[in-house]
Amino acid sequence: MSETHKTGADTQLGDSPAMVELRALRASIDNIDAALVHMLAERFKCTQKVGHLKATHDLPPADPAREQIQIERLRRLAVDANLDPDFAEKFLAFIVKEVIRHHEAIAAKTGN
Amino acid sequence: MSETHKTGADTQLGDSPAMVELRALRASIDNIDAALVHMLAERFKCTQKVGHLKATHDLPPADPAREQIQIERLRRLAVDANLDPDFAEKFLAFIVKEVIRHHEAIAAKTGN
Repeated sequence: MSETHKTGADTQLGDSPAMVELRALRASIDNIDAALVHMLAERFKCTQKVGHLKATHDLPPADPAREQIQIERLRRLAVDANLDPDFAEKFLAFIVKEVIRHHEAIAAKTGN
Repeated sequence: MSETHKTGADTQLGDSPAMVELRALRASIDNIDAALVHMLAERFKCTQKVGHLKATHDLPPADPAREQIQIERLRRLAVDANLDPDFAEKFLAFIVKEVIRHHEAIAAKTGN
């Protein structure tokens, strides 16, 4: 982290052991965020293809049965990974909302 | 996918080439979602540690300067990965909201 990037916590903790640990944790968080962004980009590539398939075959953008299966699976995976299953469900809903927005845009373009 | 898991699209497309492609895409989406859940679990492990550090050293749960740096970095990463940078920013805000909720709970427990 360069001098120009010192944040509130940096200023208060200086080079104390706590600050060293905080910087290490933040570096890990930044790495994980980069991974998340790339996984999300890959996920949207897949859902864009799903959107085109659905538009071509005149299928509705949302599929409640599939979504229910996804929710139950993600909740189980979250529990195993020690992540709050309610948060995992909210997270999926957050992404699906964006996916449906994309699919509606694709359907509008293809005239379906 | 077992018989009992057939969803709306399955029923309408049967075993057509489109359905085969849809199933393959959904299998990839499910794999990516499992990866996302595990990355998120790891991210919250880091932020829980940050929360304990902040509570111990009496630092505020939010750090606007750090968050601004994270937003700008994630937006750049999103553009490179062909992901909508506005979505990446909303995604970070969604996670940070949950992190702050955790940090406030930690602070309340430690009496800070």
